[in-house]
Amino acid sequence: MKNIETKQFTFAFPPNELILESGKKLGPITIAYETYGELNKEKTNAILVTHALSGDAHVSGSHTNDDIVGWWDKLIGPGRFIDTNRFFVICSNILGGCRGSTGPSSINPKTKKEYATDFPIISMRDLVNVQKKLIDHLNIDKLLSVIGGSMGGMQVLQWMVAYPNKIKSAIPIATTMKHTPQQIAFNEVGRQAIISDPNWKKGQYYGFKIPAKGLALARMIGHITYMSNESMKTKFGRRYKLNKENIRFGAEFEVEGYLHYRGDSFVKRFDPNSYLYITKAMDYFNIQNEKRLGSIFKGLKAKVLVISFKSDWLYPTQQSQKIVKACKLANVKTTYCDINSNYGHDAFLLEVNEEGQIIKHFLNSISSNE
Amino acid sequence: MKNIETKQFTFAFPPNELILESGKKLGPITIAYETYGELNKEKTNAILVTHALSGDAHVSGSHTNDDIVGWWDKLIGPGRFIDTNRFFVICSNILGGCRGSTGPSSINPKTKKEYATDFPIISMRDLVNVQKKLIDHLNIDKLLSVIGGSMGGMQVLQWMVAYPNKIKSAIPIATTMKHTPQQIAFNEVGRQAIISDPNWKKGQYYGFKIPAKGLALARMIGHITYMSNESMKTKFGRRYKLNKENIRFGAEFEVEGYLHYRGDSFVKRFDPNSYLYITKAMDYFNIQNEKRLGSIFKGLKAKVLVISFKSDWLYPTQQSQKIVKACKLANVKTTYCDINSNYGHDAFLLEVNEEGQIIKHFLNSISSNE
Repeated sequence: MKNIETKQFTFAFPPNELILESGKKLGPITIAYETYGELNKEKTNAILVTHALSGDAHVSGSHTNDDIVGWWDKLIGPGRFIDTNRFFVICSNILGGCRGSTGPSSINPKTKKEYATDFPIISMRDLVNVQKKLIDHLNIDKLLSVIGGSMGGMQVLQWMVAYPNKIKSAIPIATTMKHTPQQIAFNEVGRQAIISDPNWKKGQYYGFKIPAKGLALARMIGHITYMSNESMKTKFGRRYKLNKENIRFGAEFEVEGYLHYRGDSFVKRFDPNSYLYITKAMDYFNIQNEKRLGSIFKGLKAKVLVISFKSDWLYPTQQSQKIVKACKLANVKTTYCDINSNYGHDAFLLEVNEEGQIIKHFLNSISSNE
Repeated sequence: MKNIETKQFTFAFPPNELILESGKKLGPITIAYETYGELNKEKTNAILVTHALSGDAHVSGSHTNDDIVGWWDKLIGPGRFIDTNRFFVICSNILGGCRGSTGPSSINPKTKKEYATDFPIISMRDLVNVQKKLIDHLNIDKLLSVIGGSMGGMQVLQWMVAYPNKIKSAIPIATTMKHTPQQIAFNEVGRQAIISDPNWKKGQYYGFKIPAKGLALARMIGHITYMSNESMKTKFGRRYKLNKENIRFGAEFEVEGYLHYRGDSFVKRFDPNSYLYITKAMDYFNIQNEKRLGSIFKGLKAKVLVISFKSDWLYPTQQSQKIVKACKLANVKTTYCDINSNYGHDAFLLEVNEEGQIIKHFLNSISSNE
């Protein structure tokens, strides 16, 4: 689908600010979002898609002025598994992001300078509260579904507890109700890589060189965790790449070259401070807290489809199974599918055929029994 | 055991240099080593212990002037599992290291300055060739055993192919015959962290500030891979630490504080250039190369004990089982034990009781049928 437009909406909260989970105020808040398909007259066909750490609002199709296709284009579009001839799909860039929504690189109206580390700490709850304002703005009372993988899945879980009556169904994919210390540890090493880069300057790098090496390192670490050992073996083996520059300790193995490439290309499109704030929101996220497992989703009427991938070692199958268990204990109607894939965590973006088929059938069953 | 001494031996190869696997020459070479117990008259009770990436020659007891106990002290010592009242144990710091043996931080006799990145690329074969010279120097014709975990295990495997007639037995622990792309990837991110640190200065940092932040980051990444998800959960859970400095993006979770601590303490005792050279030697290591699995250890008369740990995801059980398979295909007498442990890769250093018992019985069977 061509001619997709990224829109922006600036929310006017009285008194022009949103109260965050931390108690701090932030505002005005601008949210970048895209929509696909048409909202039906009854407003019953709206699906919200939530993105992962490095994603953005551009989930499907391409814009007028470039050919960059959306990050879940194979899943979402006219005639696709999530059929935009039938459904009205919304995807917004998260609060704290750097792709059109208010984040650390936005101008603080009070200082007329970038927020940088004056940006307040944000949580998954804040991200979802802002998405709810967007849904209100679009005059949608109830979403047919909210769908997301990885950190997108955390937002789905947050919708399930924060706005249980505003969703008819929910699809959390390859995600968790809270990070383990190992998941926190990987994020922390990424953050330390950024902070240790002298160009970070305590976050005050706007207008100067960005901490590119630190951000690239963080992305490299991330990519190792997104792939499986098996998918790396298939893709790279122990093959050598041509070390054209012949520099000592330059990339020699193909896997090294790939990680360098992924790190360097990420730097061109992502703000290091956003990386810090968003990974912190992931680490803080804990939908259970002191609650018993069976109380988390108590009273939720929405139907839930949980999807995980067998080779995902970053958000392993057991974490999805725990979501299923929590739903079942709360008597929530829940379907679960553990998809066979070698792609590791990336599978949620790549294993689109099987994942899409399952989502399609689930959405059919939801929309048919209105 | 008190009063352990680190000795040094400088090898005089004609013409005072060793030819490395790369074809380059290096020399003279000094090797730091320690010995424990007494070599018997028949010289049949010598055991060589090989160390891992961050290890050194100090494997047991403590020195006269401090109380730092050796890194495998619970395993090796008088009356311990490897009983130094009975065996003569030798451990040397590897070539390329920074704990008394010749490495990138040593003075290049030709320039009278540190080698830095003029130090030649080294391989596991080079490391073992140098150990062989030390064994010759100690007038030992045949080792009763060579024992090591992780990268130490790679050296054991190298002994098995390079000097099959010079060992009566071999114990490779928690190791592999070659790195997978994932193992290479983790090392590469560590190396890039060092190289990206502006204090690295293409390796020419001696006499200036060392690339401490980069080395600490590399160590933090390493530590995540040394522990298991389970052991992190047991040790840290999602508990918070006191963020005394209350700095934004400082360590908040206990697991973060621990990683910072391990990173910072590593910096005090390790040379960043050594880290680069040694991890490269690990990544290059490939004992199989183009050989069929059954040909690798063909003709080896030594008895082999392979040990792995169930929760080790850095050098997983399957890699040890492949060593066993290669040995069995070559008709090498091989025993294998996969130890139940939650400690992850670190288990080879921590799970000493079960590991030690197995090693003790194996060594008894070897030394009794002389």
